[in-house]
Amino acid sequence: MKKLGILGGGQLGRMLLQAAANYPVVTHVLENDPDCPAAKLCHHFTLGDFRNYDDVLTFGRQVDVITIEIEAINVDALETLEKEGKTVIPSPAVLRTIKNKVTQKAFYEHHAVPTPSFVVTHTLTELQQHADKLPAVHKVGEGGYDGKGVQMLHSVDDFSKGFDAPAVLEQKVAIATEIAVIAAVDQAGKVVLYPAVEMVFDPVLNLLDYQLCPAQVAQTVHWKAEAIVMRLVKAFGSPGLFAVELLVDKQGEVWVNETAPRVHNSGHHSIEAHYSSQYDMLLRILLGYPLGSPEAQSASALVNLIGEPSFSGPARYEGLEEVLKMQGAYVHIYGKAQTKPGRKMGHVTLLGTDRVDLMRKARQVKEGLKVKA
Amino acid sequence: MKKLGILGGGQLGRMLLQAAANYPVVTHVLENDPDCPAAKLCHHFTLGDFRNYDDVLTFGRQVDVITIEIEAINVDALETLEKEGKTVIPSPAVLRTIKNKVTQKAFYEHHAVPTPSFVVTHTLTELQQHADKLPAVHKVGEGGYDGKGVQMLHSVDDFSKGFDAPAVLEQKVAIATEIAVIAAVDQAGKVVLYPAVEMVFDPVLNLLDYQLCPAQVAQTVHWKAEAIVMRLVKAFGSPGLFAVELLVDKQGEVWVNETAPRVHNSGHHSIEAHYSSQYDMLLRILLGYPLGSPEAQSASALVNLIGEPSFSGPARYEGLEEVLKMQGAYVHIYGKAQTKPGRKMGHVTLLGTDRVDLMRKARQVKEGLKVKA
Repeated sequence: MKKLGILGGGQLGRMLLQAAANYPVVTHVLENDPDCPAAKLCHHFTLGDFRNYDDVLTFGRQVDVITIEIEAINVDALETLEKEGKTVIPSPAVLRTIKNKVTQKAFYEHHAVPTPSFVVTHTLTELQQHADKLPAVHKVGEGGYDGKGVQMLHSVDDFSKGFDAPAVLEQKVAIATEIAVIAAVDQAGKVVLYPAVEMVFDPVLNLLDYQLCPAQVAQTVHWKAEAIVMRLVKAFGSPGLFAVELLVDKQGEVWVNETAPRVHNSGHHSIEAHYSSQYDMLLRILLGYPLGSPEAQSASALVNLIGEPSFSGPARYEGLEEVLKMQGAYVHIYGKAQTKPGRKMGHVTLLGTDRVDLMRKARQVKEGLKVKA
Repeated sequence: MKKLGILGGGQLGRMLLQAAANYPVVTHVLENDPDCPAAKLCHHFTLGDFRNYDDVLTFGRQVDVITIEIEAINVDALETLEKEGKTVIPSPAVLRTIKNKVTQKAFYEHHAVPTPSFVVTHTLTELQQHADKLPAVHKVGEGGYDGKGVQMLHSVDDFSKGFDAPAVLEQKVAIATEIAVIAAVDQAGKVVLYPAVEMVFDPVLNLLDYQLCPAQVAQTVHWKAEAIVMRLVKAFGSPGLFAVELLVDKQGEVWVNETAPRVHNSGHHSIEAHYSSQYDMLLRILLGYPLGSPEAQSASALVNLIGEPSFSGPARYEGLEEVLKMQGAYVHIYGKAQTKPGRKMGHVTLLGTDRVDLMRKARQVKEGLKVKA
């Protein structure tokens, strides 16, 4: 049986392992927390730091195929492993490009992939020379994750909140809709795309409220998005799963916001709603099997379960029973013992055919199910 | 988080654990093989014998809720644990009734649950007094599993093949169809039933070929089957999941063949084809959550992957790639390193709406995918 190594042991690794149990594969996980969500679902758990060269090298040498569930890994070690003949998916070169937002943006520009207009800044002093770009988003090159490392700059007064490090200053696009498309690329370069999903934001809090699939955008927007994602993954030239976040402006133009070279939050719904889930699809790619079908069996909504503000401690899922009574509701709790404000603790996928009904149910879950301590 | 203990670590335990990773629960498995299919998907694996009183007692005392994935467990220990206040599902009393085919049949008779006419025999000498019952099936009371412990007796010449131990001699029913119904009973006694599935046999080999859901039987047969299963689980008076195998004769009468008080091979298709899979459903029962929906989202076929005759050794899955190319085909390989003739190595679920198409695809999988060494 092939030995698969996964760098990172969070919920993405956990769900990848749930799917891996369908295939003949021996699984290894590297993570520095023995209680991480993936620790107890793999054949072999290695306590170590995926940011550390030696830890990744030692870990990678004992397996046949290596993948990631987080970008903040040691790319140097993956390059060494690739030279030593290991299969690394996605390729270390693509990981290097993507994990730094400056090189990621430069890559889009170089390959004529539409992306919001930007300049690169290296210091706060340099940032202050770009008042003409405001309002803008300042994104630090390396180290940003889960909302950290991104700062909205509305006026010159906000410049002090920017990053005194290499960063991208991106002009704000007048966004009509945010969508995401996941591309799956097998080891021979064959590509299939999942249908675009649509992010629905809370108009008051401006936070992601829930996600719908399929995205309700004009057919031309679907076509543009698919063409852009196809061009992008062809440019990457690497096997793997790529989750591409796209902005749709009020004129119907489509822009790449950013890409994650891995399974992604925006693909969780595929577990129940699509023929081949993003996890199943990545495993097929890793194991050299034929790609699955990304087609939807059902329309779906996805609600993230986020630790409530002002609650820290052992997690409690208030309202869980009511959600479990809903037909077509699938609860995924990630097995994190402790909740804290904003922590991703689980998600709920809802199946249905009627978009309005899905929206109603998504709000019901959002309002009825709370992660508290 | 609740601690769940599972007695047995085979494929049923493995799939239960895949589903358990969606819920806040800590999982424990007791099995005497450290390489069993469930060993690497639980939080805590205990090497021990589920037939041994002390092993089961020690194991059970460290958890909150105990269930089984095989009947051949030590019931005495489960009774002690129940007295000590542990939640044991199904109840030890029902396990005791079911695990012996003599008491199981007596239970059906006592509760007016239709079952083929039978006598109990204790020795081979006693068996020979029942020539009038031939052709018949001889089923040993305890210890039969996976086809062992069951003997067809066509004529008096076959008597020597019978069991010299307490056993049931059951008159052969002129079977038109074999179906199975899974009942889920929660801790408050609420019952839901999965739609009946139909077993399709190879007319030449007389072996199970594949399974279809829904069963194509007259509506009156569905009603009778549901009424019988409902009566049966009410008589058991225990929470749990019960897979009831039923025989339908040429007059459309329905007879209980036997019951398994656990997740069952005949319910594997529910993972992809039904709202709540049998594994998800059992977890809901164990954790005290509301029952899920047993309804089908799609018609389905189920093909078991059985070790080919005359192959023993490290398993190889010939034809796997072709099956992975089929839309709506879901491959489950159980992670057993070694194959041997007749060993259950995996299964494939097929989704579709057209029964004829499902039958064609099931035969395609059956003929195209072989487990060899």
